[in-house]
Amino acid sequence: MTWTIYLSGEIHTDWREQIKAGCAARELPVRFTSAVTNHEASDAAGDVLGEENDSFWRDHKSARVNAIRTGNAIENCDLAVVRFGDKYKQWNAAFDAGMCAALGKPYITLHDESIIHPLKEVDAAAMAWARSADQVVELLAYIIAAD
Amino acid sequence: MTWTIYLSGEIHTDWREQIKAGCAARELPVRFTSAVTNHEASDAAGDVLGEENDSFWRDHKSARVNAIRTGNAIENCDLAVVRFGDKYKQWNAAFDAGMCAALGKPYITLHDESIIHPLKEVDAAAMAWARSADQVVELLAYIIAAD
Amino acid sequence: MTWTIYLSGEIHTDWREQIKAGCAARELPVRFTSAVTNHEASDAAGDVLGEENDSFWRDHKSARVNAIRTGNAIENCDLAVVRFGDKYKQWNAAFDAGMCAALGKPYITLHDESIIHPLKEVDAAAMAWARSADQVVELLAYIIAAD
Amino acid sequence: MTWTIYLSGEIHTDWREQIKAGCAARELPVRFTSAVTNHEASDAAGDVLGEENDSFWRDHKSARVNAIRTGNAIENCDLAVVRFGDKYKQWNAAFDAGMCAALGKPYITLHDESIIHPLKEVDAAAMAWARSADQVVELLAYIIAAD
Amino acid sequence: MTWTIYLSGEIHTDWREQIKAGCAARELPVRFTSAVTNHEASDAAGDVLGEENDSFWRDHKSARVNAIRTGNAIENCDLAVVRFGDKYKQWNAAFDAGMCAALGKPYITLHDESIIHPLKEVDAAAMAWARSADQVVELLAYIIAAD
Amino acid sequence: MTWTIYLSGEIHTDWREQIKAGCAARELPVRFTSAVTNHEASDAAGDVLGEENDSFWRDHKSARVNAIRTGNAIENCDLAVVRFGDKYKQWNAAFDAGMCAALGKPYITLHDESIIHPLKEVDAAAMAWARSADQVVELLAYIIAAD
Amino acid sequence: MTWTIYLSGEIHTDWREQIKAGCAARELPVRFTSAVTNHEASDAAGDVLGEENDSFWRDHKSARVNAIRTGNAIENCDLAVVRFGDKYKQWNAAFDAGMCAALGKPYITLHDESIIHPLKEVDAAAMAWARSADQVVELLAYIIAAD
Amino acid sequence: MTWTIYLSGEIHTDWREQIKAGCAARELPVRFTSAVTNHEASDAAGDVLGEENDSFWRDHKSARVNAIRTGNAIENCDLAVVRFGDKYKQWNAAFDAGMCAALGKPYITLHDESIIHPLKEVDAAAMAWARSADQVVELLAYIIAAD
Repeated sequence: MTWTIYLSGEIHTDWREQIKAGCAARELPVRFTSAVTNHEASDAAGDVLGEENDSFWRDHKSARVNAIRTGNAIENCDLAVVRFGDKYKQWNAAFDAGMCAALGKPYITLHDESIIHPLKEVDAAAMAWARSADQVVELLAYIIAAD
Repeated sequence: MTWTIYLSGEIHTDWREQIKAGCAARELPVRFTSAVTNHEASDAAGDVLGEENDSFWRDHKSARVNAIRTGNAIENCDLAVVRFGDKYKQWNAAFDAGMCAALGKPYITLHDESIIHPLKEVDAAAMAWARSADQVVELLAYIIAAD
Repeated sequence: MTWTIYLSGEIHTDWREQIKAGCAARELPVRFTSAVTNHEASDAAGDVLGEENDSFWRDHKSARVNAIRTGNAIENCDLAVVRFGDKYKQWNAAFDAGMCAALGKPYITLHDESIIHPLKEVDAAAMAWARSADQVVELLAYIIAAD
Repeated sequence: MTWTIYLSGEIHTDWREQIKAGCAARELPVRFTSAVTNHEASDAAGDVLGEENDSFWRDHKSARVNAIRTGNAIENCDLAVVRFGDKYKQWNAAFDAGMCAALGKPYITLHDESIIHPLKEVDAAAMAWARSADQVVELLAYIIAAD
Repeated sequence: MTWTIYLSGEIHTDWREQIKAGCAARELPVRFTSAVTNHEASDAAGDVLGEENDSFWRDHKSARVNAIRTGNAIENCDLAVVRFGDKYKQWNAAFDAGMCAALGKPYITLHDESIIHPLKEVDAAAMAWARSADQVVELLAYIIAAD
Repeated sequence: MTWTIYLSGEIHTDWREQIKAGCAARELPVRFTSAVTNHEASDAAGDVLGEENDSFWRDHKSARVNAIRTGNAIENCDLAVVRFGDKYKQWNAAFDAGMCAALGKPYITLHDESIIHPLKEVDAAAMAWARSADQVVELLAYIIAAD
Repeated sequence: MTWTIYLSGEIHTDWREQIKAGCAARELPVRFTSAVTNHEASDAAGDVLGEENDSFWRDHKSARVNAIRTGNAIENCDLAVVRFGDKYKQWNAAFDAGMCAALGKPYITLHDESIIHPLKEVDAAAMAWARSADQVVELLAYIIAAD
Repeated sequence: MTWTIYLSGEIHTDWREQIKAGCAARELPVRFTSAVTNHEASDAAGDVLGEENDSFWRDHKSARVNAIRTGNAIENCDLAVVRFGDKYKQWNAAFDAGMCAALGKPYITLHDESIIHPLKEVDAAAMAWARSADQVVELLAYIIAAD
């Protein structure tokens, strides 16, 4: 069985690539999904439908278009990895984690020790907390491929 | 019918009291639920089960105890109001919003204009965005009591 | 047991009052829910959140506020009556019927013979098609109170 | 992953073909489903089961046969596009949209500006509103194939 | 807690009254629901909506009206008792049992030994098989009121 | 898309083979599932687990083993055809129909006019009533393969 | 709101009474449900339906009768407390915990340190692990009644 | 169709291999899933995330990592076989059975006669009780491959 892994959260570091490379190196049967990670493209997702003067509605339109993709990814994943970096609000990552929790989709959080306390509710519903992409790869290798 | 309203998020201002007072003044048939909003009590929710040396596990235990209450509140609410203040990470509020979205529980966000952009995914799944407790009370009066 | 009946659709004739009066005359244990039927109030449901220049967004905001009430009504009803008049598009009534069908909520349609053909998909998923409010009252009396 | 797109609504213009051609031109991994779009065949779907004198029952039989196909299409789609033209009642399109909303299937509406107001409830639950088949193709390309 | 018990099946003997009397004698906190058990009234449930020449459609209309009541009863029951007598087809009783099984509603069958074999699939999904109304009352007393 | 069709009910005539042959002749993309239709093998399904002296328990064991197969077939089908012949009780067929109805699986009934009245509840929840295997094949061809 | 607490597991010590007394002393708005805790009565739950020679079937009948009560209790509880003593297999307690986990019902385990390792899967899905009835009462007081 | 069979429980005898070999000999279209059955590896599943001094938390971390795999296996299986040996507590096996029961996944128990009584609740919700791996293979052959 191929596992479908949804990679949610931070888009400013290369953690997705590290996980993909680690899994490829181990030849794990995995398939990754993700939001569009190009920041400008993501913010402009709804622009094709017409310009907006009000930034709230521009954001609203784009966010709903993006939600078609992320909602599909969550619905179809076997496991999610939710990454919180040390910058930005990243409320969308916590929102994704809440959706996973409610839908019974297991997820692993990936973040530094420095933000343990504000993430305690998100971590409490996670199946594991990892500090590095390597740890995530180790977990995937065990979960998917151990005997 | 009495509406059950779950008030989620920020615990450092009196927005909950404003909404409760506004609804009481209008004699709306509402009942409010909430996480424990005493910050120290909330952080210590699991301490009765034994001390922890590792802060991660102390947080984990307390957060899971608190999740019994908040999970029940979300499951049983007719509507949630999710408040984001201008301080703190408030990932638990975004997490609650994600749970509401996945469970089909309608929610209203309550926050200033200054954080529209980072909240765009959370707002996109909300049924309304309010800027003040008064607006929330107006909406509740309309939704629950208009003819 | 009190039955909760959601009355959906046309707001320009007094069919809701006829059904309520008929049920009251028969002392049926029923409770009725409905969208806000004041047309102007309904269109303005979101105005308290701020003015909009673009009519699409004004409608969008109001419709999402109204959906908090109608979604709750559908979720909590035992039965819906969906009325189609001879004017207007009434796509919201057909939309409500689709939600009922998907959620397993039984519904009765109420409309004239002249619109049988365009309503065939909506009627096909209905539990009954009535031509008059009196017929609806007769059905409710039988369903709720017969031995 | 191949996306399955359910194309619902108007059958008198070639919007389905435009979307299919646009996706083919971009080599998007999509698969389309639809009701039977031959009007006469659709109205006669139940005739093989025996003639009916009463047009209500002829419509009823055909509509229930057609609902096997459309119900399956909705249940199995990743996304729906719901088209409203400027003629006809098109209550079946609004009904399909209501089913999608209740089942958590995201949908995009496709219609002109002239019918924004009567479609406000249907649009309010949609993930996007497009005015042209080209816009739908642009959205699909972004949602399915952007990085 | 009051238990709601749905009594399904045979309408030609007084088994419902026996169970009700037995529960009343023991003062069990129970509430009973049932289809309309007046055979003629049940067959005529849809007649108020207009006469039908074709007996299939008369039956269809009445059966769908009756299904509003029985569907509601199944959805809201804590337990069903499904009675099979020694006459008639009683496919509706087996149909109700199938609905209970699929919805996770526990049910008890009530029938003689002579029809064990044809009822084996229905009994296999039942929580108990009783041969007499007295046995059903004994079970209810134990399930609801034992310490 | 290949449609999976569950063929439920009567095992003493060759209606299953007629439907399969008709679909093969038309090259429809269908796959059929069914209970084990060898009567003796079906009654003995549980015998491998040990002999039973009491016929109720022999039936119970076999019926529960068979239910693994039929439950899986219902859960995974796109459509069911439920056949009632003119002999036997066939309560298992009505039970399957009830499960389909509760799970939202569309089904077609297949039976003669002579048993319309006792089957009215089963037919009322069906998407179509066919009188011959040929009619079922015609419906499948339309539903699955029409444009 | 009154909380309904399902007390599952060990029946040979008075832990249920301790929790009830502790909650009564604190005047918590709670209501408790439980399996029948009289061991002999529980083993004989199905005897009223007729004697069995084979102990497997006697157990089977009684267990299915008891499951009507425990299934209802799990379905309707807000929270479960699952107690494991130091004797007996108590597979039913672990089974109840598994049902709670799958249904999204939060549960607290109550057991000594000596059986941490064999209970690790059950504890891993629990919201809290308590070592004494007093701790459970403390948790309930916090969850239900704290501000 | 390939059946996916989840093999749950005892890890100290070769019952999994016996079932696999038996199915292979009969060329049944089956695919097996399982927890990691290497006891040491399983206990250490979470160690990669950092050492724990407290054995409860080490067990907790590992059990939650393992639950990603077993939860996925249960969610995706067509049938589970749950094995109870004559040693150890095996609460995880009973927990898996409870999850299967709540999710509507059919399961077969595999155990000796000596533990019938303590397993009565687990067996009562099972579709069959087998005493040997051979019996399980016989059942699978019948369920999957009989005509």
